[in-house]
Amino acid sequence: MTQSIAFIGMGAMGWRMAAHLPKAFSDVRVWNRTFSKAEAHAAEFGTKATSIEQAVQADIIFSCLPTSSEVEAIISQYPPKNGSIWIDCTSGEPSSAKKVAEQLAANNVAFLDAPVSGQTIGAERGTLTVMVGGNKAALERARSAMEPFSSLIEHVGDSGSGFAVKAVNNMLLAVNLWAVAEGFTALKAHGVNIDSALTCINASSGRSLASEVTFPQRVLNREFPLTFALSLLAKDTGIAIDLAHTAKIPAPLLALTQSLYRAASSSLPDDSDFSASVKLLESWTGIELKSN
Amino acid sequence: MTQSIAFIGMGAMGWRMAAHLPKAFSDVRVWNRTFSKAEAHAAEFGTKATSIEQAVQADIIFSCLPTSSEVEAIISQYPPKNGSIWIDCTSGEPSSAKKVAEQLAANNVAFLDAPVSGQTIGAERGTLTVMVGGNKAALERARSAMEPFSSLIEHVGDSGSGFAVKAVNNMLLAVNLWAVAEGFTALKAHGVNIDSALTCINASSGRSLASEVTFPQRVLNREFPLTFALSLLAKDTGIAIDLAHTAKIPAPLLALTQSLYRAASSSLPDDSDFSASVKLLESWTGIELKSN
Amino acid sequence: MTQSIAFIGMGAMGWRMAAHLPKAFSDVRVWNRTFSKAEAHAAEFGTKATSIEQAVQADIIFSCLPTSSEVEAIISQYPPKNGSIWIDCTSGEPSSAKKVAEQLAANNVAFLDAPVSGQTIGAERGTLTVMVGGNKAALERARSAMEPFSSLIEHVGDSGSGFAVKAVNNMLLAVNLWAVAEGFTALKAHGVNIDSALTCINASSGRSLASEVTFPQRVLNREFPLTFALSLLAKDTGIAIDLAHTAKIPAPLLALTQSLYRAASSSLPDDSDFSASVKLLESWTGIELKSN
Amino acid sequence: MTQSIAFIGMGAMGWRMAAHLPKAFSDVRVWNRTFSKAEAHAAEFGTKATSIEQAVQADIIFSCLPTSSEVEAIISQYPPKNGSIWIDCTSGEPSSAKKVAEQLAANNVAFLDAPVSGQTIGAERGTLTVMVGGNKAALERARSAMEPFSSLIEHVGDSGSGFAVKAVNNMLLAVNLWAVAEGFTALKAHGVNIDSALTCINASSGRSLASEVTFPQRVLNREFPLTFALSLLAKDTGIAIDLAHTAKIPAPLLALTQSLYRAASSSLPDDSDFSASVKLLESWTGIELKSN
Repeated sequence: MTQSIAFIGMGAMGWRMAAHLPKAFSDVRVWNRTFSKAEAHAAEFGTKATSIEQAVQADIIFSCLPTSSEVEAIISQYPPKNGSIWIDCTSGEPSSAKKVAEQLAANNVAFLDAPVSGQTIGAERGTLTVMVGGNKAALERARSAMEPFSSLIEHVGDSGSGFAVKAVNNMLLAVNLWAVAEGFTALKAHGVNIDSALTCINASSGRSLASEVTFPQRVLNREFPLTFALSLLAKDTGIAIDLAHTAKIPAPLLALTQSLYRAASSSLPDDSDFSASVKLLESWTGIELKSN
Repeated sequence: MTQSIAFIGMGAMGWRMAAHLPKAFSDVRVWNRTFSKAEAHAAEFGTKATSIEQAVQADIIFSCLPTSSEVEAIISQYPPKNGSIWIDCTSGEPSSAKKVAEQLAANNVAFLDAPVSGQTIGAERGTLTVMVGGNKAALERARSAMEPFSSLIEHVGDSGSGFAVKAVNNMLLAVNLWAVAEGFTALKAHGVNIDSALTCINASSGRSLASEVTFPQRVLNREFPLTFALSLLAKDTGIAIDLAHTAKIPAPLLALTQSLYRAASSSLPDDSDFSASVKLLESWTGIELKSN
Repeated sequence: MTQSIAFIGMGAMGWRMAAHLPKAFSDVRVWNRTFSKAEAHAAEFGTKATSIEQAVQADIIFSCLPTSSEVEAIISQYPPKNGSIWIDCTSGEPSSAKKVAEQLAANNVAFLDAPVSGQTIGAERGTLTVMVGGNKAALERARSAMEPFSSLIEHVGDSGSGFAVKAVNNMLLAVNLWAVAEGFTALKAHGVNIDSALTCINASSGRSLASEVTFPQRVLNREFPLTFALSLLAKDTGIAIDLAHTAKIPAPLLALTQSLYRAASSSLPDDSDFSASVKLLESWTGIELKSN
Repeated sequence: MTQSIAFIGMGAMGWRMAAHLPKAFSDVRVWNRTFSKAEAHAAEFGTKATSIEQAVQADIIFSCLPTSSEVEAIISQYPPKNGSIWIDCTSGEPSSAKKVAEQLAANNVAFLDAPVSGQTIGAERGTLTVMVGGNKAALERARSAMEPFSSLIEHVGDSGSGFAVKAVNNMLLAVNLWAVAEGFTALKAHGVNIDSALTCINASSGRSLASEVTFPQRVLNREFPLTFALSLLAKDTGIAIDLAHTAKIPAPLLALTQSLYRAASSSLPDDSDFSASVKLLESWTGIELKSN
């Protein structure tokens, strides 16, 4: 029996993720608020641009939107059909996932929070990591629909767990990057060759994706290409700190990091890449983090 | 013309580093305060256990001691011979390196601060990273003496720069590990499967050596094997923060991290591994960071 | 026309506040879950111990309970009579005040969030500060009922504002006290006479209620008398940080303070006074904050 | 026997402090690098503008300069006469006081670190607080020379203790002010009347000199009058954090505060009053801390 698939949200991630689906499925419906993007996707990748009403009648519905609010708004206005599986790849809020999953379960719809990691390059190559919260049996039924765009699909717990892991992942990226920026500012202030220093640290115990990839490829070359908005990372750090807060757990390092990214996000232009957060630090020190 | 080499300090690192030298040099002298360790090294690796007076007459003298104070004490009491090169592999203080390098230069001795990264396993395998501060020509003259135990030898700047890079590296390890601990505590508090979460994060942008190696191999398995003392990491974070402080640079994230490791170091037993720092956080939350 | 007054909650604060009411009103009803406390109050101060059903039929109803949850539970089970004014002196949550005020307004009941400051001694003397959020006209109608126990009654804004100001006040107490503790630990570590130092600082620009009252009267004398539970202050810092968080405002100093009090609250015995928070710091330093 | 007094440094504080001395002493010498200020002081207050060589021949020599470096420079170039007492009212560094005191003791000169608190208004009125480190007997011999400008003279410990207490005092001012700014930003974001809120808090446990004086008289009225430079307060927070650092004591709240003032100091114009530090926070939030 053939499954119909829908993908809601043709943003930088959704566009690339949905592009892999026609390899495995014949009925792939795409929808986007600015509908011309859905039509362009259909023209380029052989998907079908449909109305939102048709999209939510698919067996499996993906959504990939800026925040949980947009997802909740669509689901409440256009409820998915009985028996379907809704897979939300948004970097959303755990509490929202719990609420929506419970509401949809009443209509025999499974809701999986399934945010992805790997950025646009991973979406392009189909090598994303998918961290999935919600019913495990539903994940198994839907796994084949995620495989075209991912190289790791991991069940991490009940509803909301996927969003929680994604938020913590992004928080760690935020911490690691800011720490690199502070450390290298101190090194530069002392006349150390920071390119050589980075070579050493990336061969040592202080390394992180932030030091190996983000810092050289976005900061030191002063390019700050916009692929992941600073405002979205600031939002994600807020979701992570909410986890600590609702559990009444002290998380001093994460809380400070969240304040720093909030400050950076509101101080810098709206279209800043997350890596541009270091510019807030630079404004305090007068030291530019740039290759020699 | 044959060079004579000496290695001062047969600790966990020095013992293994010096073991590689006889492959490349015929006159390798070793010395240790507890002299029986030097004799054991000679017996096992074909080095020569000599007096400290003979050690400092070598062409190239390595030192690998707990802190810069021990190095300064030996150099002032037993000055190296004219024309030699002193390579200090201690995780020392940049200000000490500057002072000692200037003093020794007056006697035509080059002093290189050359701390290593890679822990005991890297020393064993001869794959350490050496970050070198000081005169570049002296480094080139001494490079062949470092090659037996290292896979990367990088000149990072003037005297003190090597120590500075090492301190920042260790600070980044400290930040990254503590952040992982806070993040996973929050996840566990929400019932997330933390082993699966770690799999996801280690395939994603939040990963670091702390999340890939330290957390699973020392913390989640509750082993905390003592290979790098918490008190030494706390000291290193102090050196890193001194860099920011003397340059009058704000470094809020590093400063907070330093306070947390100071607190951990004075709260936990003296023989704690650096990874045991997470136990301080656990004492605040009642949540144990342990594999499922 | 005579007003009837009720007071719900005979805790350390409520007991003393209600004791002033019979001076100005003839019908003062008191209720407490452990009813014998209400009866004891009636016997001692000439109030009337009534059922909760009778209490909520008063013209003006005070509540003073541990948290907003208890207040919400009572109001939903025992709705106040039409036309009455409910004055909640709990250190509650702004979001709860907004919700309850809206619900009660539908039944023509005014809800004022009116937390008090001044501790048990201020309640005893009738010199509390009352910070009031909600309808200003309702406050004026109810002012005479608050006057017996207060020397300052201030309208600070719409519903929730009173709770917000109280939470920020308590957060500032928390910040100021912890900062004093860190500063005096550093002074003591350097051999400074901390009693003389306190005399100087309390005559200087660094002074605060924490340094003038809390530190000498609770900490330096090692008495830590339980009059305001650490767990409640930790809760209040959580309410304050929620204000920053929901407004997406960076508040690094308050966020760190909140983490420290969370850590202190979960590390120390349940019946600890808020001033005992300094013991967490002492456990990190081995330095006791005690008069010479 | 009459004592001769000298006062070195006719800045905003020194000018006013020295003005009180002729009431009690007949031989009062004043010196300033820009000598015309010394002459103006002599003309206005009946002191004598002398050369620096004559100044350091006085029985008691006061200095009040920007930092310890200036004091050390003068003392090394113009050593005070044998048997004199040097009273340094600079907000200086404890380690400098220890060093200078030891050096001068060899020439039978007592050095007291005696910083003052009370700002220009306290200097004007002669009501400063003097916190004195060093030899207690020397303080007693010199006490009458300090009494004209102070209402509290307190011995706080050995050499350096006075500077340490002053640094901690100023750090506490810095912490308390920044915390007020964060708290009131959160309140304003929620629509609370911040003038009324301040009235409440200043009658409650969260109050401090920062909330009672600095915030209303410098910030909320948007005047930020320059009487104590932000750069000097940033320096003082550095001295305070050095105390914690050299004692290897964790001081997370003070360390964060220091970073914030460093950032503020380097982000804001050079002639900013310390109270203008809140503008850094305002740049992150878009919320102006201004009376209604």
